This record gives sequence, structure tokens and C-alpha cells, in this order.
Amino acid sequence: MVNYNTVTDNVIEEIKNAVSGKVYVGEEINIDFFHDEMPIYGEGQPELVVDATNAEEIAKVVKICNDNKIPVVPRGAGTGLTGAGVSRHGGVMINMQSMNKILDYDEENMVVRVEPGVLLNDLAEDCLSRGYMYPPDPGEKFATLGGNVATNAGGMRAVKYGTTRNYVRSMEVVTPTGEITTFGATVSKTSTGYSLKDLMIGSEGTLGIITELTLKIIPAPKETMSLIVPYEDLDTCISTVPKLFKANLNPQAIEFMEKEIVNMSEIYIGKSTFPKELEGIDIGAYLLITFDDEDEDALNDIVEQAAEVLMEAGAIDILVADTPNKMKEAWAARSSFLEAIESQTKLLDECDVVVPINMIAKYVHYVNERAKDFPFEVKSFGHAGDGNLHIYTCSNDMEKEEFIKQVDVFMNDIYKKAYEFGGQISGEHGIGFGKKTFLHEFEGEVNTELMRGIKKVFDPNLILNPDKVV
Amino acid sequence: MVNYNTVTDNVIEEIKNAVSGKVYVGEEINIDFFHDEMPIYGEGQPELVVDATNAEEIAKVVKICNDNKIPVVPRGAGTGLTGAGVSRHGGVMINMQSMNKILDYDEENMVVRVEPGVLLNDLAEDCLSRGYMYPPDPGEKFATLGGNVATNAGGMRAVKYGTTRNYVRSMEVVTPTGEITTFGATVSKTSTGYSLKDLMIGSEGTLGIITELTLKIIPAPKETMSLIVPYEDLDTCISTVPKLFKANLNPQAIEFMEKEIVNMSEIYIGKSTFPKELEGIDIGAYLLITFDDEDEDALNDIVEQAAEVLMEAGAIDILVADTPNKMKEAWAARSSFLEAIESQTKLLDECDVVVPINMIAKYVHYVNERAKDFPFEVKSFGHAGDGNLHIYTCSNDMEKEEFIKQVDVFMNDIYKKAYEFGGQISGEHGIGFGKKTFLHEFEGEVNTELMRGIKKVFDPNLILNPDKVV
Repeated sequence: MVNYNTVTDNVIEEIKNAVSGKVYVGEEINIDFFHDEMPIYGEGQPELVVDATNAEEIAKVVKICNDNKIPVVPRGAGTGLTGAGVSRHGGVMINMQSMNKILDYDEENMVVRVEPGVLLNDLAEDCLSRGYMYPPDPGEKFATLGGNVATNAGGMRAVKYGTTRNYVRSMEVVTPTGEITTFGATVSKTSTGYSLKDLMIGSEGTLGIITELTLKIIPAPKETMSLIVPYEDLDTCISTVPKLFKANLNPQAIEFMEKEIVNMSEIYIGKSTFPKELEGIDIGAYLLITFDDEDEDALNDIVEQAAEVLMEAGAIDILVADTPNKMKEAWAARSSFLEAIESQTKLLDECDVVVPINMIAKYVHYVNERAKDFPFEVKSFGHAGDGNLHIYTCSNDMEKEEFIKQVDVFMNDIYKKAYEFGGQISGEHGIGFGKKTFLHEFEGEVNTELMRGIKKVFDPNLILNPDKVV
Repeated sequence: MVNYNTVTDNVIEEIKNAVSGKVYVGEEINIDFFHDEMPIYGEGQPELVVDATNAEEIAKVVKICNDNKIPVVPRGAGTGLTGAGVSRHGGVMINMQSMNKILDYDEENMVVRVEPGVLLNDLAEDCLSRGYMYPPDPGEKFATLGGNVATNAGGMRAVKYGTTRNYVRSMEVVTPTGEITTFGATVSKTSTGYSLKDLMIGSEGTLGIITELTLKIIPAPKETMSLIVPYEDLDTCISTVPKLFKANLNPQAIEFMEKEIVNMSEIYIGKSTFPKELEGIDIGAYLLITFDDEDEDALNDIVEQAAEVLMEAGAIDILVADTPNKMKEAWAARSSFLEAIESQTKLLDECDVVVPINMIAKYVHYVNERAKDFPFEVKSFGHAGDGNLHIYTCSNDMEKEEFIKQVDVFMNDIYKKAYEFGGQISGEHGIGFGKKTFLHEFEGEVNTELMRGIKKVFDPNLILNPDKVV
């Protein structure tokens, strides 16, 4: 356990003198900064919040904190689900949202340079207006890009386009000792020493503060089409997925969902799009698939081939959404799953495991069976194309302490099963504070000690985002 | 400088008792193990070579060496170009070539599990015979897959399919302290702590010994077609490349080559395929492009669109290679560049820089201009699709010492320019021993110290592949 110092009046003065960004102390700090989107992992109050303006000023603040052994937490839009952006030992919080400029596009090298506080949605729209696409597409569109990189955010389109990791060409970073450096370059291929850039991606603000990003973009695909595919049961539904890959149909996204969560979400948004019964058969599960292509005819061909594979694999029907409006409708319920769940419970916890895609059905069955032994409700959905599942436990009317205690037993059990099936703790939300003990338990002593050693190399005084990941 | 111990009779005995693989001592060791494909970086003789059989035995050997402070060098097929697989302090060499089994295919998750000594060519052919493709395609087909991962090998198809990094799902590793662990899992998406897997990829046998790999494979594209595209000069040739990307034509490979090297290689292989003069115009440079697709008509469409872009951008003609034989012919000269260069010189050195693709022409001009000040010959070619250039200095009849001295000045100068242009030291060959001082100079003190710190976390006694990378 490290003993940190508090932010004294002298330190406040030093920081105020070092920066041009606004500084908030004590009660001036907005209470929104005390938690992220998963309040079950606890609140934490920074002693000082400073609006970031540029790398030089951030480096000065970090140096002051490093010299004084004061914790520093970089914070994006606060949309995290693991407590990674919450201050657990007071100290200084650096609000990166104020560094929100899209700096420039380099169209010959197909990259865009941005400040880390730019929101994903803003970059996505700006790219589209120029005929480009920034492929990473996590559910939360109002996260910062810095936060996306810090968690290696995935999202729906990861199936075809990969995760955030695949789109980071280079980054400027302030190290925990206050040095400014660059990892990577505007090149698609490099073998220039250890990949410090890849180490930073997914390190959740514990190894350095990202102050600029150069991100790969691609030409926006001209045509997209979505399919709603109902099945009688989850097994048949999920077992289709490897067949689509084997046929090389290269879907952009494949989501699976069970009937219950679709119902709940459609009630929440007040609109019903998914069929519940077809040809006298009760629908038990759905795939929601998107394909894209440069060419309308080619896309129609792909969808035709896909339809054949899907029907052969036991789909009851195929509903095609081939206009922007119909696609929006098809995805509306899916986009509101988390909000719908949140609206129905006081408190919730979440498991973001990833398992090999041929294990999804078996794993979901296991989770549903295991859930019967617990007094809370369990709701799950996920990315069938990459095996990443979101499993929510809902307290409903349970007491907080009892809920936390019981959820811990349940989570431990289902993480264990995920590892038995060849999976890992987190597909895209990261470890933060909430999953730390699970990481250590399931990734093992050797890997955990290596991670701890790396943390100390970057951050000898352990001031940067302490108590997260390792 | 670390003081290592020598391999004593006791240690030999201990190792012989610990392993079932063959052990070679002193003069029993084949002299092929003393160097790699770039002898200019010097020879080095291990005291003992052991044929690897499995992770457990490798762990035992590493533990013995770690306890006795004896260097250990893991070695693949010895095809490296940086001296990374050469023993510089005696000690023990672990010959990974004996672990050469393709273990199993998991077709539902689209991965193949292999031992690290499997040759790239063997996996590539085995995959194709099952309708799959393992996309990484470095020039050297007879390297081991472990070596490919250790250097993050790139190759021709990196333009469309990415480098080796993109195809490693997980690996079993023996750490420098003799522990066996696993990094990653059979999943395409993970945010489970720091990416130790990505740190291992490209670490050139300095952080651990890879004992098993789970690699992603994809369905083999059904149709491929290559184009030879002659231009009057290099500028026009290279300036076409960003236009192909902008048109979203997604080529599999784009190589550029100047007339001189094509001539030399065609003489070497005794066959001429590339036009040297067209419509009274002397050809100065070429693009060699491959496209692939699932569908013949779609591929024809793409090639038609590409032809339009190419001709508009100043191509003199377009020669289509649309049968396996014609494609083989089109690529024959390109495949023999290195051998052709080697055949004409006593000694050579190599620079494997990577620059942003819009800087290639400017960079090659700079290199050609600079080369005029030096007494050696310079020959270059490269991957126009990803900015990775291979620049060879040929000693011809120069004395070795003088050649090394002058090449050092030249390399320093052209690396400096690469960084000015936003590039990096190595696109795919790595750092090894030969590029170490350049890495430190151009990646800077902060990054180098981080790399050194990481090395110590993995390898506190610095026994694993010492004197490489950091």
C-alpha cells in the first residue's frame, strides 16, 4: 500500500501557476467527476480537477504530482464501466474533455490527428462527412477517443474491422514522470523495438496520459444492409456464426440476443420491430447482422449467399433492412439494451467476458443455469461475431451489501468457466478497479507480476491512476 | 556490461539430464549456427546447442542458465537480417527448428495451433490445401513462425491483411526465469490488462521463448490477379499509390521497383518479363500490384476501376497477369531481388526503414542523391503500399572495415531523414544487434529507457538473447 500525500495549498498554487486551463478545488468540483457509469464500484473524490489544454501543461502538473507523491487520474467523458476513471485516493484529476479538437486529416496516408478529448461520435460524423469511416464503434458513442484507446474499445464492427488497437498509428504521451514522448508513427507496419504503443493501448490511464492520437481511417463503405434473423432457440442461433465466417461472407457486425432482452428493450423504447412468433413457432433468439460493400450488386450477392447459409442453419425467417431508416429501426432495440436494463434496477454489475465463438451458446446456457441459484436477475446479450458477452446482474430490490457479496460469488464462478472455455475477463470494457482481483486470479501470478513490473517501470512512484488494473 | 558465466562440464551434465532433445557441445555444433543472413553484424559461437522438444524442457534449460548466469539464445531458421539469432556471449543456444509440428486446426474459431519451429512455407501450404490462407507473407518463406512473430514479420500482403501481429491469437511462452505462461486467448477481442502478447510480438527473443502459437487463419480468397504497371519515373509511379487507397480498391500487395533492380534481377533469373521501353518512352519505375476477391466478376470490376485510376495517374501501360503461371512470372523477378543483390557483392548491409506512403518518392530520391557521396553501390526496392523500403549497400570490392565505417555514416544520415519524414527504423526486419544504436538514437532516451526497464522486468539477470534490441 502506497502512502500518498494530499494536495496542499502550496501544490494548488504551483499547479495554478503552471497551467492556463481552469482549476477546480474542493467544493468547486462537479460531483459528476466522482463516479463513472458503474457506481457499484464506489465513488471517489479528487481534491483538485484541472482542465487539460496541452501536453506541456499536463507534463508540468504530472511532474508536480510525481515530486509530491500525489495521485493523478486522467479522465475522459466518464462513460467507463469499471471505475477506471474514478479517483480512489484523492489527488489531482486531469479532465481531458477540454482537449477536444480534430486537428487535421492526412488524406494521402489516410489518418486523422486528434486531441484525446474528442468524442467518438464527433469524429465518426466528421469522417463520414468527408467520405471516410473511423471503424471502431463501441455502444457508447459519447466516450472520448482517449478513453477508447485506453480501454482498447471494441464495438459492433470489430468483427470485420477489428478493435481500436488496429486504428492507432501513433500517440503522444505524458509519462508518469512528466516526460513527453511519442509511441509509433504514421506507418502501417513497424518492427522498431518493443511496441510501447501496443502496451499503452488498453492500459486504462495507468502507464501514461495520451495527449494526441493519430488514427487510421478508411473510405466509408458505400452500401450497408442489416438482417434480423429469428431462431427457435439460442443454440441454433449461435451455431450459425462460424458458418458465416467459413463462407467468407465477412459481416461487419453479428449480434445475438435472446427474446427476453429484446422484449424488455422494445417496451423501453416503445416500438416493436422483432417478430416474436413465426409460422406458429415461438422465437427464442435472434441474430442481427450487418454486411457492407462498395457495390450494391455485390452486396445483394453477399446477402443472398448469407440467406442461404442462415436458412440452412435453421433460421425461421430473414427480415432485410436495406434503407437507412429500416436499419435504424433494426438496431434501435439493440442500442438501448443497457439503458433498458438500467431503467429497471436500482443497482447493477456487469461481466464483459470474451470466449471463443464456438463456446458462446454453451457459455450462455451455463450462465443462465448458474443464475438460478442467485436471488438477482441476470440479463445477457453480446457480440456473436467475436465471442464478447455482456452479462448484467440486476439487484432489483436487494440490499446493496448483500447484492455485492452474492454477485462476487457468481462472477467468480462465471469467470472461472470463461477461462475453462478458453476465454478472458474482458472483451472491451477493461479491468479498471472493479475487475482487478479477477484479473489477478485468472491471468495468474506470472502475468500479474509482469504487469506490476511494467507499471513500476513507467511509474516508479505509482502516482498515475493508482489501484487500477494492477 | 553484464559478466556472464561459461558453460561448465557440470552445466552440460545438468542440461543433458534435463532434456530429451539432442545436445551439441563445442565442435559438435554446426557452424551454420554462428551467423544469420546478414554476416556483416558478426559471427558468434554458442558453447552448447540443444534441440528444443517442449516447453517443460526449455523451461528447465532456461532455469539452469538463469541460476548460473549463462546467456540463452533462442534460434529459428537463422534467416534473420539483424543478427538477432546469433550468440554474442557464448552460452546456450536453443534450436527451435526441432519443434516443427502443426498441432491442430480449430475451424470454428478459424485458428491453427502450431509449434514455433514450423516453417512459414509449410503452414502456408497446409492452410491452402484446406481452403484457408495464413496471410502474413514475408519474402523469406523458410523462416520459422516463431521467428516471424519475434520480428512481427510483414511481407507483401501486409497492405490488405496486416502484419504477423494481426494473426497471433495467443502464445505459450517460457519466461527468462524459466516459468511457463500463456499470453492472449483464442478470441479476436480482449481488454484484459496490459497486452503482454503484443509486447512479446516483435521483441526478437529478448523477453521470452515462444513454445506454442495459436494463429488466426482466413478463408483463402478464390480469385487473384496481378498487374505490372510501368511508369516513366519513380515520382509518377509512387504518387499513384494513395489514389488506389482513396478509391477503396483494397489491393493485396503493391510493390514498387526502379528499372535498375528489375534489370539486375531478370538477368539473375535469366528471364525478362517487365517492359523496358513502351511507345518510345524509357520505363523508369514499376508498380507490381495484386488484387484478390471472392468472385471473378467482382475482381474484374476492381481491376477495371484500378486500371482507370492507374492510367489517369500516368501509367504508360498495364500488363495483366490473370493465370497462376502468369502471376508466378510477374512476381519471379521481385522474389529474387535479395538473392540477385547478394550474388553481385562480397558484403552487404541493409536498411529496412518505413516512412509514410506519401513520402516514399521523396525519400528514395534523397537516398539516391546521398548515395552519390559514398563509394559503395546502393540498391533499393520496397512495399509501396505500406512505406517499407529495403535499401541495400553493396561493398563490391571495398575493404570490409572501410565499408562498415562508411555505411555507418550513410545509414545514420538516411535514418535521420526517415524520422524527419515521420518514419521509423524498421518496418519488418527488426532491430537485433545490427540496428541497436540507431534505435536508441532515433527513438530517444525516454522510449529506450522504458524498453530497458521492461527488459529487466522480464529478465532480471539479462540472460535471454543479450545485446539485442536494448
